[in-house]
Order: sequence, then structure tokens, then C-alpha cells
Amino acid sequence: MANITFKERKTVEQVEEGTELAPKFQEDGLIPVVTTDYESGELLMHGYMNEEAFKKTIELGEAVYYSRSRETLWHKGATSGLTQIIKEMRIDDDQDCVWLRVEVQGNGASCHVGYRSCFYRSVPTGEEFSQKDGELNFEEDEKVFDPKEVYGDAPNPTKL
Amino acid sequence: MANITFKERKTVEQVEEGTELAPKFQEDGLIPVVTTDYESGELLMHGYMNEEAFKKTIELGEAVYYSRSRETLWHKGATSGLTQIIKEMRIDDDQDCVWLRVEVQGNGASCHVGYRSCFYRSVPTGEEFSQKDGELNFEEDEKVFDPKEVYGDAPNPTKL
Repeated sequence: MANITFKERKTVEQVEEGTELAPKFQEDGLIPVVTTDYESGELLMHGYMNEEAFKKTIELGEAVYYSRSRETLWHKGATSGLTQIIKEMRIDDDQDCVWLRVEVQGNGASCHVGYRSCFYRSVPTGEEFSQKDGELNFEEDEKVFDPKEVYGDAPNPTKL
Repeated sequence: MANITFKERKTVEQVEEGTELAPKFQEDGLIPVVTTDYESGELLMHGYMNEEAFKKTIELGEAVYYSRSRETLWHKGATSGLTQIIKEMRIDDDQDCVWLRVEVQGNGASCHVGYRSCFYRSVPTGEEFSQKDGELNFEEDEKVFDPKEVYGDAPNPTKL
């Protein structure tokens, strides 16, 4: 990773209108990452990278996150085989958020619960909210894999 | 907004596998929001909602964010006319992130710099990074609107 460096943030114009990569990490050292499927455009997951994960992602061309629950670098797919190949990596106007457009290997799932996308449920809005008593609706019919088979007894990352 | 309430988070199973809306807000009271174009799937922006913004979004069926830079509720499009109509609202497995699939009104832009998407530049990955000397590439050819005309002298939200 010797050659991957980030530029210093000097002016709003440089950050918004220029071609220098000058990402802004939050106070906790992380930058949010939005990951979508390159073909379908579907939102697969929302995660975080620290500086090391950001550089690793660039270097490998595969998604590397920072797991907040496990407090460690997280090369997506290392356990499950569901690697996310980067087809395109984008950064937003003020360079404080990353968009990964990926092709998922293996069975194509990205969610630890077993669904293709982490966003497998919808929230009713407007008048529908009262009509449906605020109940979520499942938008994916079935799980792509059985998390118990893939992750075994590894602790569930969901925090209450 | 009298009828919109969130459920208490009791178990991982309830949060991940159930139909109860029990969102988790970060310590700062915010939840990240990913907004994509309903038709094209393009990532338009990444923002945040507090509890009030979340409920307002459900109630109105239009995107309402919390602006961290202005520290206030932000009904997107109130200044620019570029309202984001919610076609579908989703929540992720552990309910700590929201996905808005929207139809943008007006000229269709969502970025304060004037582009359609906030993510108008790509970052080279793998061997391309060195080949291109780490320079960002513009993926949108031209701005959809002139920010000066729309926002006038309002302060730029980008922080260095």
C-alpha cells in the first residue's frame, strides 16, 4: 500500500471540484460506505471503512470494511466466500462518503441474516403507515443462504 | 405525527426477522440514510435523519433529513424545489440504516454542487490507482444547475 496516499484538505473548491482524493474521516476515524450491486443497482449494505480499510479496498479492488462490532478490519467474504469485487468506486461532493459498485461472488448475498440485500424490508409511508399499522413488509421472499451453516456459532453482529 | 411510534428493541430476532419498526439511532441521535433514484438505481446522496425527521419522512412521503452542518431539520427541496418523493422506504437488518428510493422533482438534481448525484467522481482502484496517479475521474459531464442561482449566498455545507 506504499503508494496510496490521501491529499490534505485545503479548500472547499479543491474538495468539491477537483481531482484530488482527500477523504474526510469522522471523529471516530471512520467514513460511511454505501455498497450497491453493479448490475441491478440494488442497495446491498451500508458499512464503514477506516483509513487502512480504504487503502486496502483500493489496493485489492475488493471491498474491505472496518467492523464496528468486531472492532477489526473486515475483508468482506473472507468467511463466507461472498467477496465483493469493485466494479467502480465513487466518492461524494465533500468526500466524506464512499460508494462501492460491486459484483458479489458466490451465491450473491451480502447480508449476514441470509438475504441478498441487508435492506430486505420496507417501511410503509404516508397513509399506508396507519393502514398497515406501521408493520414492515418483507421485499425478499426467501433467504439465499442459511447463516448457521455459513457462520456457525460466530456472534451475531446486531446490537440492541 | 401522532400515530407514528417506534417499537422498543427487545431481541435480535425481533429486530432482524420481525415486522416491527424499531430503528436504532446513533449516540448523536442520528441514523444514516442512503438515497437512490427509483428508476435508475443511482446513488444520489447519503444523509442523516433524527427521530423527528424519520417520522416526518414517513408522514409526508417526502425525504426529510437532519442537516448536521446547519443543525436543523431539512425538508429536502424546500429551497431548491428538488423535492424527493418516496417511492419506497426500506430499513436494514439491524434497523440502524434507512434506504430511500425516490423520484426527484424539478430538474432531478440532488447535489448542492449542481450535479445530479453527490457521487459524481470515481476513485481508480487496483493497478489503475498508480497509473492514474490517484486522480479522481468526473463521471458526470456537466452540472444540472448553477448553485449560485439556486442557493445564492447561503453558506456551503462542505466542512474541511
